[in-house]
Amino acid sequence: MTLNNILQQRPSWLAEGKEADVVLSCRVRLARNIAGAPFPAQAGDNALAAVMRVAGEAVDELSRRLGRTFTWIELDKMTEIDRAVLVEKHLISPLQAGNPRLRAAIVSDDGAVSVMVNEEDHFRIQVMMPGLGLENVLEIADKVDDVLEEGMNFAFDEKFGYLTACPTNIGTALRATAMLHMPGLVLVRQVDNMALAAARVGLIVRGMYGEGSEVLGDIFQVSNQLAMGYSESELVESMTNMVEQIASRERLAREQLMEKQRAGLEDMVWRSYGTLSCARLLENAEAMSLYSKALLGIDLNILKIPKEIIYQLMVDTREGHILRAAGAGTEPCSKEWLRAKIVRDRLAEVKLT
Amino acid sequence: MTLNNILQQRPSWLAEGKEADVVLSCRVRLARNIAGAPFPAQAGDNALAAVMRVAGEAVDELSRRLGRTFTWIELDKMTEIDRAVLVEKHLISPLQAGNPRLRAAIVSDDGAVSVMVNEEDHFRIQVMMPGLGLENVLEIADKVDDVLEEGMNFAFDEKFGYLTACPTNIGTALRATAMLHMPGLVLVRQVDNMALAAARVGLIVRGMYGEGSEVLGDIFQVSNQLAMGYSESELVESMTNMVEQIASRERLAREQLMEKQRAGLEDMVWRSYGTLSCARLLENAEAMSLYSKALLGIDLNILKIPKEIIYQLMVDTREGHILRAAGAGTEPCSKEWLRAKIVRDRLAEVKLT
Repeated sequence: MTLNNILQQRPSWLAEGKEADVVLSCRVRLARNIAGAPFPAQAGDNALAAVMRVAGEAVDELSRRLGRTFTWIELDKMTEIDRAVLVEKHLISPLQAGNPRLRAAIVSDDGAVSVMVNEEDHFRIQVMMPGLGLENVLEIADKVDDVLEEGMNFAFDEKFGYLTACPTNIGTALRATAMLHMPGLVLVRQVDNMALAAARVGLIVRGMYGEGSEVLGDIFQVSNQLAMGYSESELVESMTNMVEQIASRERLAREQLMEKQRAGLEDMVWRSYGTLSCARLLENAEAMSLYSKALLGIDLNILKIPKEIIYQLMVDTREGHILRAAGAGTEPCSKEWLRAKIVRDRLAEVKLT
Repeated sequence: MTLNNILQQRPSWLAEGKEADVVLSCRVRLARNIAGAPFPAQAGDNALAAVMRVAGEAVDELSRRLGRTFTWIELDKMTEIDRAVLVEKHLISPLQAGNPRLRAAIVSDDGAVSVMVNEEDHFRIQVMMPGLGLENVLEIADKVDDVLEEGMNFAFDEKFGYLTACPTNIGTALRATAMLHMPGLVLVRQVDNMALAAARVGLIVRGMYGEGSEVLGDIFQVSNQLAMGYSESELVESMTNMVEQIASRERLAREQLMEKQRAGLEDMVWRSYGTLSCARLLENAEAMSLYSKALLGIDLNILKIPKEIIYQLMVDTREGHILRAAGAGTEPCSKEWLRAKIVRDRLAEVKLT
């Protein structure tokens, strides 16, 4: 697997999974640090390089044990645009992309399993899957954890659990996340209520790219706020329960809208499709909002096109992806023009049924 | 020719004529009153009936002399919706439609020539034509005038000219009107300037349905404010000159927009087409605005569909036309839904080239 392939292909979590009408994907992230070594923010070049070395040595063993091919990607050996593409695929963080020296990522061929090296912590193990399946995702993350642990000692305290750069991660150092599409709750203005209910069980609701990111396309990240006081599997179980509840509320909102405002809903969905098919300039935020309506339309059987097309567009029309696809020397065309062209061409390939 | 045909067919002035990129149609209207008889607003039933009788007697002679078949339409012998359709076709006025008793219209088979009977004046002769051709239109109106005059004495004063119910019409009693599509001047915010320039030569700029009507779809009526002090042909000539000047300004605005904001213009046109093709609910004002952008797109060679389709939709999707086409018993569907369906179906018949 080459870096090129990873940059170009669709990540395997961009597909329809369990509860796919609401849950786009789920993710587990485990933070790990080498005992006795300074956290990346405090580390000098030698210390960072030592972490890189240990991580690099684990790649082959990860491929053998996980049954996937992993690729070692050093972030300062690629262009800024390629790093942006990895961020948009959720494979590295903006923090890493902005400071690529002595930073790396270990990425599985399907993009589902990855390890960020020298991000906030020495290692951030990350596993993603389409739909809701946090138990499975956790299982895979634990395997990666086992492989890494064989080559080093992790910073661990009997009382506190895993030690991490940020106190909120201390304990299990686990963050479980579900990416939820909630156009129904947005339309009936119930997102804030839902977020309050989630907060009561220790979950936090945010925009698509996590902390501080804006909400685009009615897509929300739900994740656990604290990582201690519960076991990994307890955290994942309570999170799964809450996500299922939120999904039910979202479905109820959609049903009510279909009952009471069917014509308005159909109009909204079809106008979005019309704009996506015809526009010559599309800003990212507008495109995301239109994708959201198209997805809702597919779920409600108003619009009959394959959902994967929209999923794929959601990633392929982000800025980094667009600039990478356009290549050098396409300057006069604005990003908005290129985005609109990609969307138009893709939708033109689909027959409406 | 039956009333039904007149209600259903496309008026002949809804086509492409001279300077069609800006001038949709032109019209001449002559006001005439029978000498010694009270104006309709002051007239009792007997007086109104007398005017109806004289008018009715002229129908056959009009057909013979004008080479068109005229139909006599008594306005209180039709439904309110049918009267609304005639208003939307510019064949009768809202004033007549609202007070149909002892009111009539004499309408030529192609809808181009008509006489309103017992409107504000006893007779309002009206001739319409696509594009700019006020001289021809005036010639036809004068022929109608000749025929009517043979059966009666018109109220005429040597000093003032033709006497009319409203003082602004006294003199030639002629109102010449051009219906102009000016999306370019709207976009560059030059309509007010243009209206001021027109006012300086005695012309007034108004919305599509004349006095007090709102501006829809960037369509403006330009007409002479006063009817005295000049001969008919002088009025028509000065009006033609001014309309040609306005059309040049509109073309210049479009050229500038194409030079400086081509992508934005293409985006606007294509989004409008997308919405027209896909929306499930369309309000009249929005539809008119979208038609305007589509027409502009056709003129600028951005959108390649026949202009007549949009012209036809401009009339067929007005409220009266929609309700008449829907027939009785189609209650649950809103007008907006019916409008969107008509537009969608028509556009689906056209191949984009």
